[in-house]
Amino acid sequence: MKLSDLGEKEIVKRLGRFLDIGDDAAYLKFGDEFLILATDMLYEKTHILPKISREQIGKLIVTVNFSDIAAMGAKPIAFLLSYGSPDIELKDFEIMMHGVDDQCKKYNAKFAGGDTNYMDILTLSGAAIGKTKRPVLRSGAGIGDIIAVTGNLGSAGLGTEILLKNLPVDVNNPAVKKALEPEPRVNEGILLGNYATSMTDISDSLSVSLYDIAVSGRVGITLEIDSIPISEDARNVAKKLNLDILDYALYSEGDYELLFTISKENFNKIRKKITITKIGEIVKGSKIVGIKEKKKFEIKKKGYEHFSASTF
Amino acid sequence: MKLSDLGEKEIVKRLGRFLDIGDDAAYLKFGDEFLILATDMLYEKTHILPKISREQIGKLIVTVNFSDIAAMGAKPIAFLLSYGSPDIELKDFEIMMHGVDDQCKKYNAKFAGGDTNYMDILTLSGAAIGKTKRPVLRSGAGIGDIIAVTGNLGSAGLGTEILLKNLPVDVNNPAVKKALEPEPRVNEGILLGNYATSMTDISDSLSVSLYDIAVSGRVGITLEIDSIPISEDARNVAKKLNLDILDYALYSEGDYELLFTISKENFNKIRKKITITKIGEIVKGSKIVGIKEKKKFEIKKKGYEHFSASTF
Repeated sequence: MKLSDLGEKEIVKRLGRFLDIGDDAAYLKFGDEFLILATDMLYEKTHILPKISREQIGKLIVTVNFSDIAAMGAKPIAFLLSYGSPDIELKDFEIMMHGVDDQCKKYNAKFAGGDTNYMDILTLSGAAIGKTKRPVLRSGAGIGDIIAVTGNLGSAGLGTEILLKNLPVDVNNPAVKKALEPEPRVNEGILLGNYATSMTDISDSLSVSLYDIAVSGRVGITLEIDSIPISEDARNVAKKLNLDILDYALYSEGDYELLFTISKENFNKIRKKITITKIGEIVKGSKIVGIKEKKKFEIKKKGYEHFSASTF
Repeated sequence: MKLSDLGEKEIVKRLGRFLDIGDDAAYLKFGDEFLILATDMLYEKTHILPKISREQIGKLIVTVNFSDIAAMGAKPIAFLLSYGSPDIELKDFEIMMHGVDDQCKKYNAKFAGGDTNYMDILTLSGAAIGKTKRPVLRSGAGIGDIIAVTGNLGSAGLGTEILLKNLPVDVNNPAVKKALEPEPRVNEGILLGNYATSMTDISDSLSVSLYDIAVSGRVGITLEIDSIPISEDARNVAKKLNLDILDYALYSEGDYELLFTISKENFNKIRKKITITKIGEIVKGSKIVGIKEKKKFEIKKKGYEHFSASTF
């Protein structure tokens, strides 16, 4: 049996035999707090979009790691980078490192260490360290909880499609920009850390993350399709291109929003402070049922495989 | 100007503009202790020797990272792995992960998280988190201190040469084995953390590490060449192959021993507990002078570039 017969989720589950978590990041008691530890890699062939700038690549490796820290309700404190590439101009390398450093500073974390190597293909491997008094896991959703998301969905997936197919949309269009330069929901994650009953980030797709919450919490979810937040920009661009934005919002990757469950009371308390949208409710059972114009249908677990069939 | 015009040490120094350290690992005050953070990568083309087993590859990625933690006088607490490879047999992947996990367990650290990706060439990127109340830096050597090393030197360099040139020596010969399966000096590092005035690990070469201690501490070093500890196995193998073992001990990489400075009193106190050898003394000035049979000569700063001219 080969790795590709399993797919990444299953490989990570096998890795989980060695680890004792299957969450966005690992957590480790340290003094009276928890250290939160995450690692994530970008490989040019499968993760780096056309038209992305070197500065955006630097930001992205921080974002994908801090997103996992945020998903645990933790505050990032430090970031480490292992860098590999063919020989490049020093100037280009420094622009990338500026991107890394700027993104760390933006979230008050320290760019704390690095390793550089010759490699044939640009590869950035990051590790983020965060802290919290209360890690929020994927499990923990309670019947009757609201399920909600930060920000809006579908833009990154739509933007990715535009870039990969070279469709005629400007790279500065916000829908496209979210694919190139997503932001980790660090401040939202820290606040939600005090209230959410479960949480994960949407790195693969909303559908995949919904299943992660449902399976980990042994609950079902009712999803109000028309409540899924989609930006006006994304709607307009999709309409022009004759693409179904809802399909991207449900099944595409790269938005790095947080998906979380929370009591109604706490939802109402914090909705004034951060942009969050209720998209459904936690119910008994194990199914994820979408409701649109009073019709019900089961949501499939799938994420786009944009880059390569051999990606696992 | 290209990255290759600089070399890795200089690139890391440039990276150091963003970071505020130039040591084996970064340190960060956390409660009443310091977190120690290190990252290091293995890339099959430039870091993985012929005849190494998959289990040994798994161990090695932990070793290279824990060695940096040990060099700070810290105790490793957790390890993260980003893994990339072409599609391989699941069994082979699991053997590698067992190697990672076993090496973490051996040093009482937690294999805390992982990320897997498709990549064309086997790549393992590790990050290690350690802790200590007192990080030992490369700077800090005082005039009159003893300079000493753990274990012995030259075996890994000799073993690497044997493996790369396919010389007729068994892979289980201890000299060869040290190239394939070095051990990080974790327990020694923790003990030395209480006494050493400066410390670094010997990952590039003794000569390079001596310069790191001398330059960081603004001191000179007198090196007693005949005191450099070399194993009987390595001496015998080198003799048979008509190779100069001293050359490997001084200028070759991969032994992962600790080089440290310490007062005479403390040296005598801990030499009963761990295998350490005095190789010289810290003196005024900035030169590193070797003494052999009463002759003096300046030690050059060089490490073998075993793998590839394009390695930076």
